[in-house]
Amino acid sequence: MNQTFTVQGMTCGHCEKAVTTAIKTLDPQAEVHIDRGQNRVDVNSLQPRESLAEAIREEGYSVDA
Amino acid sequence: MNQTFTVQGMTCGHCEKAVTTAIKTLDPQAEVHIDRGQNRVDVNSLQPRESLAEAIREEGYSVDA
Repeated sequence: MNQTFTVQGMTCGHCEKAVTTAIKTLDPQAEVHIDRGQNRVDVNSLQPRESLAEAIREEGYSVDA
Repeated sequence: MNQTFTVQGMTCGHCEKAVTTAIKTLDPQAEVHIDRGQNRVDVNSLQPRESLAEAIREEGYSVDA
């Protein structure tokens, strides 16, 4: 299931990796694609949207509703 | 020996950690303090200045001469 999040605060490649790792820790099968310039995180995962958003927030980034 | 570097491109806490780790990999005894807002990296180390600068550059940051 494709889910798109708008994530603020990703400033560099380390941030992309941190967000990717947070999502994959929650769901190792998840596919993650990040377009940092667009603040966009696309996730293919069966996990609930709010769980994925919370995993991103726990890394210190804000996720738009 | 206190050595100060002006480093461009550190945008977040991950970057500070990457620079710190790079320096400490070169010299585990090094003391490192980073003021990201000032692009300033202070290192207390006996390693040659150019070796420290190169370690920072290898992480993808530019170091002013």
